[in-house]
Amino acid sequence: MNNLLVAQSGGPTAVINATLAGVIQGVCTTDQVDMIYGARNGIEGVLKGNIIDLNELAKDTSALDTLTHTPSSALGTCRYKLCDWREDEEPYRKIVETFNRLKIKYFVYIGGNDSMDTVHKLSEYCRSNNHNFIIVGAPKTIDNDLAMTDHSPGFGSAAKYIASTMAELERDTASYDLPAVTIVEIMGRNAGWLAASSALARINGGAGPDLIYLCEKEFDQERFISDIRKKQESKPNILIAVSEGIKDQNGNYVSDQLSSGAVDNFGHKYIAGAARALEQLVRKEIGCKVRSIELNLMQRAAAHLASDTDVTEAKLLGQKAVSCALQGGTGRMVAIKRSSNEPYRIELITVPVEEVANKEKKVPLDWITSDGHDVTKEMLDYLKPLIQGEINIKYENGIPKQIRLYSI
Amino acid sequence: MNNLLVAQSGGPTAVINATLAGVIQGVCTTDQVDMIYGARNGIEGVLKGNIIDLNELAKDTSALDTLTHTPSSALGTCRYKLCDWREDEEPYRKIVETFNRLKIKYFVYIGGNDSMDTVHKLSEYCRSNNHNFIIVGAPKTIDNDLAMTDHSPGFGSAAKYIASTMAELERDTASYDLPAVTIVEIMGRNAGWLAASSALARINGGAGPDLIYLCEKEFDQERFISDIRKKQESKPNILIAVSEGIKDQNGNYVSDQLSSGAVDNFGHKYIAGAARALEQLVRKEIGCKVRSIELNLMQRAAAHLASDTDVTEAKLLGQKAVSCALQGGTGRMVAIKRSSNEPYRIELITVPVEEVANKEKKVPLDWITSDGHDVTKEMLDYLKPLIQGEINIKYENGIPKQIRLYSI
Repeated sequence: MNNLLVAQSGGPTAVINATLAGVIQGVCTTDQVDMIYGARNGIEGVLKGNIIDLNELAKDTSALDTLTHTPSSALGTCRYKLCDWREDEEPYRKIVETFNRLKIKYFVYIGGNDSMDTVHKLSEYCRSNNHNFIIVGAPKTIDNDLAMTDHSPGFGSAAKYIASTMAELERDTASYDLPAVTIVEIMGRNAGWLAASSALARINGGAGPDLIYLCEKEFDQERFISDIRKKQESKPNILIAVSEGIKDQNGNYVSDQLSSGAVDNFGHKYIAGAARALEQLVRKEIGCKVRSIELNLMQRAAAHLASDTDVTEAKLLGQKAVSCALQGGTGRMVAIKRSSNEPYRIELITVPVEEVANKEKKVPLDWITSDGHDVTKEMLDYLKPLIQGEINIKYENGIPKQIRLYSI
Repeated sequence: MNNLLVAQSGGPTAVINATLAGVIQGVCTTDQVDMIYGARNGIEGVLKGNIIDLNELAKDTSALDTLTHTPSSALGTCRYKLCDWREDEEPYRKIVETFNRLKIKYFVYIGGNDSMDTVHKLSEYCRSNNHNFIIVGAPKTIDNDLAMTDHSPGFGSAAKYIASTMAELERDTASYDLPAVTIVEIMGRNAGWLAASSALARINGGAGPDLIYLCEKEFDQERFISDIRKKQESKPNILIAVSEGIKDQNGNYVSDQLSSGAVDNFGHKYIAGAARALEQLVRKEIGCKVRSIELNLMQRAAAHLASDTDVTEAKLLGQKAVSCALQGGTGRMVAIKRSSNEPYRIELITVPVEEVANKEKKVPLDWITSDGHDVTKEMLDYLKPLIQGEINIKYENGIPKQIRLYSI
């Protein structure tokens, strides 16, 4: 018996289940894998032996389609950092025990850079200890900060949500004829790709966002206020996109800087996001109507607005992960290589996972305009293909149809 | 010449432009109206003579379709309260001046209860001063708090967005196997219809929201904490929906109560929403991972997720407003009367606008469950038809296609 185990890890995305569906389909189209299982809550499920049988699901094409369009991790997720096996072999022994019990030969781990660290350590452990398990990684992250891949599944859908939502917010905020500032906080502690994608809201001639601040560039409060004042000379309503992780010249988060003195009735510190902190700043310095908005979990969960390009690639990468495993590609991650923006052309490749693990791909500084508050044409050319195409999602009773693989 | 003037007022919705498109189509299908004009930023545009010619748009069916699916007020909006004409006739004279200059006979005002106050006062003024202008109201509000109509255009789409988004958030928050509380703040200062619609996220068997608190019911912090503790006995991840306007037993907003002591580094008061305030409370009392989410402007601007039922009704009400005007129905608002939930059956009627102006339709207390943290079957039966049907929205370059009728 050669069985395959799949698991999902890290923060949810709109298409991480499309990759799972791709893995299942990859298994269905080969006779080299006998059974397919899923681990609950990532590597934690492997450690605990908390396993779901996916073989019935594999035969149900309609359910696989629903899975493809259900957001978040249908198998559950975790944030578990595997220790160094030379220091503590115990977790590794437990993993091998689960593998042996279920006759697992192939393990596919879908996740971000932390999860690729798990793939790396586990494959190294197996190699060093003569275990013939094949450990393969499949990428996912809305942040687009994974190295060695042109972009990551999950990012395109989040970018499409952000661009579409910013276009809708622009229409909303422009409807009053009064001076106003709206600050939208977008995910990204260390990489500004998602905030950058807000610029796509202008792709059809839209009037906002007016200002975009990425976390790669030092954030200057005085320049921020003067940028707003300048924009308001020609337009009363200013729409601003900021990365949650914008930092000042000393590398301190703006959110911490501006809100560190705030305490509530209980004497507890207020944990304010960057946009909320900047809202207070604008209220003090400019005094016009000001509102902050966090796109919060919606930007990673909005499967109803997923990019068809993203869903398709996510699924293909799941299939590619299976073929990589069958070819013995242990310690490798499947990835995307782009050869052309227009027409958009990619190929699926595999890369050594140690070159992905624990690394972060940031926005190149020369893709930020010299005034520091917008992105360049190179950035737009890079982003544009990733949000193309709409999915044909099924609705049931007026809301998107979803699948759940287990109940609590 | 018998011309028609249309304007939009109050907070934006996803379908207020569908009603505008309906008015334009209503004019196109009669020979009793010669020209159609739009006032910029509601009654303010009428006062200032800031008028847009809509006659070219009326001939362009493709543009009208795009208008139907563009969120917010394409003509701009305002929050202008017309004074009593017996105290100050000046604004009324200006309005009449604009009407006479453009040979306006019919004025259609699309808006909420404040806007219906304008329709009422203006129609009374005209009647009392022998001006033969016909002033008609068309309803819109996401809050669903308008009297004399079964429901209001804009509500169904916001409800569909809220239900779909809560279903997506439920999948997201359920993916980690850790105790966590997520509190989602939904619009509604005095009426809890929108927060109630979060219950539709469970319509297909979904597992959340777990607790729903409407502003009609007195909010008790201690009971809130004990409700969470009880739910966490069987489920680690708790998803909660709250109206922004929940109030304590003394009628004070929970947001003010809990955040009144918070000041930032500048010594300025923190304006925290209800969910943010409750996040602090849960952090203190329960101590598990807690997150607050505001659906903010997205819930009224997300035209990409509009309810087809809502869009269709919004447009029909625009057409009905024209026919009401042609029949001389000054001082009336077009409205919806429901005869059956299943099958869903409605008819369009007209009602005296003074019975709508400045009133608020709240959730009946017997549509809230006796435990105070959910809604009844009656509520679900009422809500369900309003979110049915998906629109065939056009995308351009990956984001929803929109129209703009003027640039700033």
